Amino acid sequence: MDATEFRRRGKEMVDLIADYLENIEQRPVYPNVEPGYLRSLIPQEAPEEPDTYEDVVKDIERVIMPGVTHWHSPYFYAYFPTASSFPAMLADMLSGAIGCIGFSWAASPACTELETVMMDWLGKMLKLPEEFIAGTHGQGGGVIQGTASEATLVALLAARSRTVRIILANDPQRPETDITSKLVAYASDQAHCSVERAGMIGGVRMKKIPTKQSNKYAVHGETFLKMIQEDKAAGLIPFYLCATLGTTPSCAFDRITELGPICNAEQIWMHIDAAYAGSSFICPEFRPLLNGIEFADSFNFNPHKWLLVNFDCSTMWVRDRSDLIGAFKMDPLYLKHDHQESGLITDYRHWQIPLGRRFRSLKMWFVFRMYGLKGLQDYIRKHVELAKEFETLVRADPRFEISADVILALVCFRLKGSNEMNEVLLKRINNGKKIHLVPCQLSGQFVLRFAICARTTESRHVREAWRIISQLAPHVHLLSSKTQT
Amino acid sequence: MDATEFRRRGKEMVDLIADYLENIEQRPVYPNVEPGYLRSLIPQEAPEEPDTYEDVVKDIERVIMPGVTHWHSPYFYAYFPTASSFPAMLADMLSGAIGCIGFSWAASPACTELETVMMDWLGKMLKLPEEFIAGTHGQGGGVIQGTASEATLVALLAARSRTVRIILANDPQRPETDITSKLVAYASDQAHCSVERAGMIGGVRMKKIPTKQSNKYAVHGETFLKMIQEDKAAGLIPFYLCATLGTTPSCAFDRITELGPICNAEQIWMHIDAAYAGSSFICPEFRPLLNGIEFADSFNFNPHKWLLVNFDCSTMWVRDRSDLIGAFKMDPLYLKHDHQESGLITDYRHWQIPLGRRFRSLKMWFVFRMYGLKGLQDYIRKHVELAKEFETLVRADPRFEISADVILALVCFRLKGSNEMNEVLLKRINNGKKIHLVPCQLSGQFVLRFAICARTTESRHVREAWRIISQLAPHVHLLSSKTQT
Repeated sequence: MDATEFRRRGKEMVDLIADYLENIEQRPVYPNVEPGYLRSLIPQEAPEEPDTYEDVVKDIERVIMPGVTHWHSPYFYAYFPTASSFPAMLADMLSGAIGCIGFSWAASPACTELETVMMDWLGKMLKLPEEFIAGTHGQGGGVIQGTASEATLVALLAARSRTVRIILANDPQRPETDITSKLVAYASDQAHCSVERAGMIGGVRMKKIPTKQSNKYAVHGETFLKMIQEDKAAGLIPFYLCATLGTTPSCAFDRITELGPICNAEQIWMHIDAAYAGSSFICPEFRPLLNGIEFADSFNFNPHKWLLVNFDCSTMWVRDRSDLIGAFKMDPLYLKHDHQESGLITDYRHWQIPLGRRFRSLKMWFVFRMYGLKGLQDYIRKHVELAKEFETLVRADPRFEISADVILALVCFRLKGSNEMNEVLLKRINNGKKIHLVPCQLSGQFVLRFAICARTTESRHVREAWRIISQLAPHVHLLSSKTQT
Repeated sequence: MDATEFRRRGKEMVDLIADYLENIEQRPVYPNVEPGYLRSLIPQEAPEEPDTYEDVVKDIERVIMPGVTHWHSPYFYAYFPTASSFPAMLADMLSGAIGCIGFSWAASPACTELETVMMDWLGKMLKLPEEFIAGTHGQGGGVIQGTASEATLVALLAARSRTVRIILANDPQRPETDITSKLVAYASDQAHCSVERAGMIGGVRMKKIPTKQSNKYAVHGETFLKMIQEDKAAGLIPFYLCATLGTTPSCAFDRITELGPICNAEQIWMHIDAAYAGSSFICPEFRPLLNGIEFADSFNFNPHKWLLVNFDCSTMWVRDRSDLIGAFKMDPLYLKHDHQESGLITDYRHWQIPLGRRFRSLKMWFVFRMYGLKGLQDYIRKHVELAKEFETLVRADPRFEISADVILALVCFRLKGSNEMNEVLLKRINNGKKIHLVPCQLSGQFVLRFAICARTTESRHVREAWRIISQLAPHVHLLSSKTQT
């Protein structure tokens, strides 16, 4: 395919995409296929000679679409949102065409520099402390990671490296393996599974800090302090806390204003994971949720969840960039370049796990400019209002209860009754394939999560979703009384 | 921006991309900017109200292009290639629009299943042993990672976990930290810096196996065997070898037919990193370079380098998928789904570092079908021929020497003379901004690397590149004699 044919096929693809997104709500949100459905629909091997483009395009509807979970359908309420907007898609097209690999400044200066400045723009939208902004006299700055899991891991590795360095400075004879074998990281028992995984990868102990329903599933300073005191008494070395703002199960907020001073006093790295909730902090009314950021060593959230920047774009800031770089730096000759030692430039490969990286900041640039800060704030507020609308509908129905405070655009709710009853309800909802939800567990209870996800979700979709749920609910009651007799 | 405007802007973007790529060779391949150039060209903060789309597009030429290193210019010969093709770009547009996050089968069955089948297609193109193909009765299969660095790390972590498991099975009382503190990983002293980094991240010793010019910079079985015997005698536990096929400095090939049996006998995980060279193995004449794969536990290469699939697409196969999953598995309720325990499905989140993942197999599907196996083979062969053509030009000039065997599409060469002389030559070449190269170090010598990179590179570009290089060379001679007097 040459450029001339690309002009034609690219324009057809633009129309195909627009058609798909304009008509997405006519599709069943969750696919009706069994595991292994796809293999039999296509050949066992790649063709020797080229297929025609027409055949490839026909297969999108025949092979792919039947197996797609439509995350951008206004009837998708599962997990947390993944962002999608037309400006981001346009920017991604451009990024694909430029196709540079931005591992160092020299490998494409624009790729590195736009990223630094976009991270500053976004940091200012969030009113981050000045230390986190690169274009100041501080030592911090921002980087785009692929996912929050990577940010959590990168922060943990930087913390591990910093702690080992500090201890060795005072006690140079101590074997490094003796230090690492005593390190302890901490996170809420509500934290995302990727946090525990970061501990496994980094080869360090990871302890879960217990939370309670009565405390709104937040980690409190008192609990944390007690744990680290016990661990220190047992000869362990507390070195890392991953605090969560907006947990996955219920969107709970750890008390970082209490946790931060403890971390600072104890030289424990405080990383804040606000993967979902972070986008809301651009609104002044939600910004107080981030109070305590001034104590953090690193902070991360995902514009690719709720800020209209298509996946992947997980933004991470650090207070001191030398902490990150110190954990990862490798400089072979084939990656050296003239400006490296000037202090003016950033080689982002030292800030992340992969070496290569796409030109992802273009998506941020297009989205921020095409929406403006006000447009982005309106978008967040609309989703929160839709969640409140759903909450009101749930509360008005005596069969149901709300399981956690609705702070942003996630509603946790359940039938008053057994877990089994709620599991049956969820199964019926998802089997209907009109709307899609996933569950969570809160204090041993099976809870349904209703997250406002799609860019195009409107009040009518939320009301339709509630109609479906509440219609299925009575059947569950009947079923349940039958089971009990 | 709504779908109607996207139809218009998307088509304009398609033309912009086609224009960019059709005229790319008119641009200086390496940008003429100083560090920090971009910040002053755009505002300090995101706009409150939206900008116009026209303004955003105008800024591509004003702000971005002056700072782009044009990786797809036929005058770009630096690093290794990064792939670009129109079918891959079309598939990526579709992937962006579907915008699913494929962490589990249920999150989008098509995303998971097409990946498994495309990995099988590609595995068959490479004639991988049947154990690595998912659609057989074996225990293996393939996964798309973001980069080779991640594949190296994932393999190392799986190896670490497997080794600890094996040792604990025989000696359940031994503390895990005692085991990990004695683990040793190995890689060539020519291996990519990301391999050493994987060792740092995994918290294990990483030893470099020495290579020699006389051995073509390959790791031999004898050297490796001696090292592990010494290490075992010292109480250490060899557990992981990252063998490289096609090293970054000179495209050297470790002797995996010798290394493999040693690893198998010693229960050392052999990972093969063929990031660049792997694509060539689809050609029967280059497939012998992969002989020894039958001993490997895992294998990885980057179609996003040389197989026309735009970044990121780093394909990794494992002999036994339970080794990977065992190292990473976490199953919270919000990610559970009905089919999980059926044994028929794959939840790729257990195969990788990040949780989220894009629908990347669409790119493979489009590219494989639009080129056909023959088209892909032709593409590889053409690049190798261009490298041979360049090699011939270098060899015909008595001022120059070839520094390593030219096996694929990388030529390592230098002026016969001092490192300083070659450094000056490279600086002149890159300052001219007509062509772009990076250096490497081989046996203490400063060497110039000439890699055929762009899809559109033709013989005329290679000859023009040589004309530039050879014209600059005499000046270096004069300069050098001046320095010496």
